[in-house]
Amino acid sequence: MAKAAIMGYGTVGSGVYDILKMNAKKIEAAAGEQIELKYILDIREFDDHPEKHLFTKDVNDIINDTEVSVVAEVMGGLHPAYEFTKELLSAGKSVVTSNKELVATYGSELLKIAEENNVNYMFEASVGGGIPIIRPLNRCLAANNIVRIAGILNGTTNYILYQMITNDKSFDEALKDAQANGYAERNPAADIEGHDACRKIAILSSLAWGKEVDYTNIGTEGIVNITLEDVRYAAAAGAVIKLIGYAEQLEDGRVYAHVAPMLIKNDCLLSDIDDVYNGIMVTGDMVGDVMFYGAGAGKLPTASAVTADMIDSVIHSERRSLISWEKTDENVSAGPDDKKFRYFMRTTDTAENVSKVFGDFEQIKSLVEGETAFVTGELTASEAEKKASELSETITSIRIFK
Amino acid sequence: MAKAAIMGYGTVGSGVYDILKMNAKKIEAAAGEQIELKYILDIREFDDHPEKHLFTKDVNDIINDTEVSVVAEVMGGLHPAYEFTKELLSAGKSVVTSNKELVATYGSELLKIAEENNVNYMFEASVGGGIPIIRPLNRCLAANNIVRIAGILNGTTNYILYQMITNDKSFDEALKDAQANGYAERNPAADIEGHDACRKIAILSSLAWGKEVDYTNIGTEGIVNITLEDVRYAAAAGAVIKLIGYAEQLEDGRVYAHVAPMLIKNDCLLSDIDDVYNGIMVTGDMVGDVMFYGAGAGKLPTASAVTADMIDSVIHSERRSLISWEKTDENVSAGPDDKKFRYFMRTTDTAENVSKVFGDFEQIKSLVEGETAFVTGELTASEAEKKASELSETITSIRIFK
Repeated sequence: MAKAAIMGYGTVGSGVYDILKMNAKKIEAAAGEQIELKYILDIREFDDHPEKHLFTKDVNDIINDTEVSVVAEVMGGLHPAYEFTKELLSAGKSVVTSNKELVATYGSELLKIAEENNVNYMFEASVGGGIPIIRPLNRCLAANNIVRIAGILNGTTNYILYQMITNDKSFDEALKDAQANGYAERNPAADIEGHDACRKIAILSSLAWGKEVDYTNIGTEGIVNITLEDVRYAAAAGAVIKLIGYAEQLEDGRVYAHVAPMLIKNDCLLSDIDDVYNGIMVTGDMVGDVMFYGAGAGKLPTASAVTADMIDSVIHSERRSLISWEKTDENVSAGPDDKKFRYFMRTTDTAENVSKVFGDFEQIKSLVEGETAFVTGELTASEAEKKASELSETITSIRIFK
Repeated sequence: MAKAAIMGYGTVGSGVYDILKMNAKKIEAAAGEQIELKYILDIREFDDHPEKHLFTKDVNDIINDTEVSVVAEVMGGLHPAYEFTKELLSAGKSVVTSNKELVATYGSELLKIAEENNVNYMFEASVGGGIPIIRPLNRCLAANNIVRIAGILNGTTNYILYQMITNDKSFDEALKDAQANGYAERNPAADIEGHDACRKIAILSSLAWGKEVDYTNIGTEGIVNITLEDVRYAAAAGAVIKLIGYAEQLEDGRVYAHVAPMLIKNDCLLSDIDDVYNGIMVTGDMVGDVMFYGAGAGKLPTASAVTADMIDSVIHSERRSLISWEKTDENVSAGPDDKKFRYFMRTTDTAENVSKVFGDFEQIKSLVEGETAFVTGELTASEAEKKASELSETITSIRIFK
């Protein structure tokens, strides 16, 4: 029998508790032994909890208990999750987590500490919630050089854009709707400004190419400036606007990455990822495009991934699972100008001036009086920005995904 | 360094060879050691091959070579693949395969022999080609009771239906097109009659519920009777027709499964799986719906999955990966009447007679003069068949997916 602990009894933590109870039989069969929960760490009181004897406020109860072999860190935030995780790994316990911020910030260090202590640090739930993506990327596509990753990695923004696309709601209306439905927090900045997706594409990139991609190097743009007109232009062009976490390995080995709204043609499966769902498209040099789809957040889906990692840690208790990346002094991240895209733009300027500034461009039917809409040739971010600044006023500038 | 062999130098076998050469560096990094190919077994001559010294016609060269630890069985067919695999596993070598027929027929026996010899028998490539599905289902969703699996598991039939849907081609034209493009064999029966998809849903079901689901118990219907009119009716109803491998665990633990064309509403992501691609939707009681998408066939995609299994076998050479299911004498398979569906039907009979026979039915706009089109209430297969036989002539009867 393996003994386990949960750190943080919030949404995900209580989901892990529920799954360990509800699916105990299935979990025992999968792990090859029973997983018994011995502690729940939380600073709050849970006097009404049916197993209130499990609760502790002192992490040392877990660290010093030699019986505990696996801990689910689902408290979120950098501190004290970072310090607790280090101590637990050093004490020879495997740690599994849904904490994308911690993995993106201290992943390479924590993976190294896990390796030194011959235990596992796993984070399937940190990207894509319940969607299997970390293990498939790491193991099932192991014979491939990963060419590109493009993912709808944030359910909140996908819900907002979907409401704009499908129900003709403005950004503000859609955001309020998302908040009313519990899909967006009262302070939605981390989602709508792209920071959440940024941590996730950093984790996927580090894993895919084996070197830590520093998330602070990833150009990140949210969806706050997307308007209903943009969405209607996209529809007229047979496309939709989605917030995409994008990463690609360049010929020189460096990784180009961004988080930004992109125009996705309707014939690409990413355009069909609706509502709060996530979809992650991975392109391997041998397998081509594969996509993983499902609930990218939520109590039980996320807890399902955390629990799967607990099971895997128990199975691999005598042998580490080979998930890791290294932190190097090399220049891993490419800059925003190392990759060209075509852009969809709208301006109050004339087609004549657009032609003068852009040369190579494709005009599209204007949907708003007094403005010119067009698609540029392939440009770097700086080129696009510089040229746009030469027009009288640029309303919209969105990269086109292909 | 791990030594490997390939059995069968056809499409997939030569793909495995190519990947081992092209991506040797990536594979070594993933496996933790180099994988060196020592033998290729094929009864044909390959005198022009740059490594013709690797070829042998005698399987005993591989069986008796204690250096060889992992063998890719990509010869296809039941015999002699079955005998060879048994001997290799008994000789302490892991075997990985793309051979769905062999896995569906002798899977439980071969998995047992592998277990007894503390080696691995892996078959990621047997379902969904290059799409990660076996390992995600087995490991990433390990904390879930699997509720249902519904998959587009055969690229040939999906291509044919897609051509009918998109390009208004008849079944015969679309089949010819598929043959011309190399997507269908000259004798396409195994694909268009659903036998290929049947083996695959049997494998997924056995894995999901841990007990061998005998594929001969799975009701299997192909797409040969689907007409352009059916496809147009589906379009008018906001749906498409797809060949679906369907499996569900009933309350009593038995597994209901079928392979049949089904009407899929356009808001279901399975409706967006176009062309030769495969998509497999798995529903877990905790995670909800997740979907896996990609190339379900083809040389390099399939070989990519075979090679990933070779890498995993090398990593797990000292400890078996826990993939298995058991063969029991219990009644595992439910019958065709243990699950009800609604049906889309077309008849030359009158709406009045339909009403008399079916009672509960929903008439839909007829697209062909002289016929009545309708959707039934929930019926078992026998009920649907019996009632349909009471009409003057039933042209079409297709289950509706929800």
